[in-house]
Amino acid sequence: MFVHRHLVQFYETDLMGIIHHSNYLRFYEEARVAWAHARGLIDYQQPGSAAHFAVLETQVKHLRPGRFGDSLEIDVQARRDGVRVIFQYRLRRGGEVLSVAETRHVPLSAELKPIRLPLPIKTVLEKETWTETWLLNS
Amino acid sequence: MFVHRHLVQFYETDLMGIIHHSNYLRFYEEARVAWAHARGLIDYQQPGSAAHFAVLETQVKHLRPGRFGDSLEIDVQARRDGVRVIFQYRLRRGGEVLSVAETRHVPLSAELKPIRLPLPIKTVLEKETWTETWLLNS
Amino acid sequence: MFVHRHLVQFYETDLMGIIHHSNYLRFYEEARVAWAHARGLIDYQQPGSAAHFAVLETQVKHLRPGRFGDSLEIDVQARRDGVRVIFQYRLRRGGEVLSVAETRHVPLSAELKPIRLPLPIKTVLEKETWTETWLLNS
Amino acid sequence: MFVHRHLVQFYETDLMGIIHHSNYLRFYEEARVAWAHARGLIDYQQPGSAAHFAVLETQVKHLRPGRFGDSLEIDVQARRDGVRVIFQYRLRRGGEVLSVAETRHVPLSAELKPIRLPLPIKTVLEKETWTETWLLNS
Repeated sequence: MFVHRHLVQFYETDLMGIIHHSNYLRFYEEARVAWAHARGLIDYQQPGSAAHFAVLETQVKHLRPGRFGDSLEIDVQARRDGVRVIFQYRLRRGGEVLSVAETRHVPLSAELKPIRLPLPIKTVLEKETWTETWLLNS
Repeated sequence: MFVHRHLVQFYETDLMGIIHHSNYLRFYEEARVAWAHARGLIDYQQPGSAAHFAVLETQVKHLRPGRFGDSLEIDVQARRDGVRVIFQYRLRRGGEVLSVAETRHVPLSAELKPIRLPLPIKTVLEKETWTETWLLNS
Repeated sequence: MFVHRHLVQFYETDLMGIIHHSNYLRFYEEARVAWAHARGLIDYQQPGSAAHFAVLETQVKHLRPGRFGDSLEIDVQARRDGVRVIFQYRLRRGGEVLSVAETRHVPLSAELKPIRLPLPIKTVLEKETWTETWLLNS
Repeated sequence: MFVHRHLVQFYETDLMGIIHHSNYLRFYEEARVAWAHARGLIDYQQPGSAAHFAVLETQVKHLRPGRFGDSLEIDVQARRDGVRVIFQYRLRRGGEVLSVAETRHVPLSAELKPIRLPLPIKTVLEKETWTETWLLNS
């Protein structure tokens, strides 16, 4: 299971004293990019290598609020769905799940047109473990 | 139908040259707050009056990318679901729908505990028009 | 005097209950872009027309905190300084000045290399009024 | 010398393909908070302990653009100036300085009123090294 860590920053809070909900999509993007980097799919030295993955849909559930200074851990799983890639996430503060989410993506050409899934991504996704019921009880 | 307008800012774009997807949740929040203000549920002069509505769940679909300088219009509809409030949104650039979304909320006390729906909100929601199939064809 | 308006959004606050200081640079960018648009220097329909102005330096003073729902007005003045453009800003809530700022910019080519000031910008700047002591007493 | 690390995220870029300038203030805040935490002045487990430091003034110079995936290092120095605290920062990508900055702060009570510098902060600042000419050649 891939795990990404994020320390909640002051500028990620709002006047309710908690993490603003829009920032969860940023944390999930961070986790997705870190996953892709760990799998050799992004080269930070090669600009644009990560850019060409469009977000088709996002779904986020909030179970408990997160706060400034929280040390978050985000578990990630990924699978292929035809030409699309599906990610699921579980965002935890220790053993407490604060949020779960799913995002759907499609690869794009440099001209931002949808393209077929590149072979390296296909190959990586074939090796990933996917648990369909993973988020059900969160 | 309530409509909120948003001019896309430079700082809302990302290196793909389009609006970063996390900003749609900010636009939808803007539209929700503007709706509540238009319905007399928020007094901007009274701090905290808008603060106590937790986001339980968000779901956003992206159909076409938006860009810097786009003049967006966001249509809003709202309904009650027990102690919760459900909002749906359609984000347009003229006649083109760029994104649709649904968010679910629960009212909170000043101590951030879930409470029953305040009467003014109930009263407003009873007068709102809700079209169940509204987002189906977007 | 050019004036830009901004209604402070929920997502622009932080856990102190006030506008997060990084957002003032976003408001000043909004005002600068709106000024350039009003002067005919940006065409929102032509992507990239506004993109090529680098930020060299920013200086922001905070006099009073701003809050959610505040209706802000930002006064803007601009002048040429050789190949550079200097903007000054005064951010008000009614008669109360909350912040003043200065930003310095240099025009860039499409390849992000510094270039000479384009003629249309020169022409516009020659007609602008600049009061050197404008921010001194704020 | 205290050093804070930040990996540039996708959502921190803009349509010019570089870090949006407003995010530098967020990186500098991150570095300031990490410094305060390293010096024992912030307890992440105790909400509010970091909240009460107002930003009076910020000044940021941009020397070279930063990009998605850059691994940044931010050097920090701090000193006392009467009731205020001054921070200076140097933001590097390896040996290349991308930006330098200075921020000025004043401590606040829980009611957001300026107060005298708390003793623990005074004590920490007396032990810090400050080089007046540090940013001059950057």
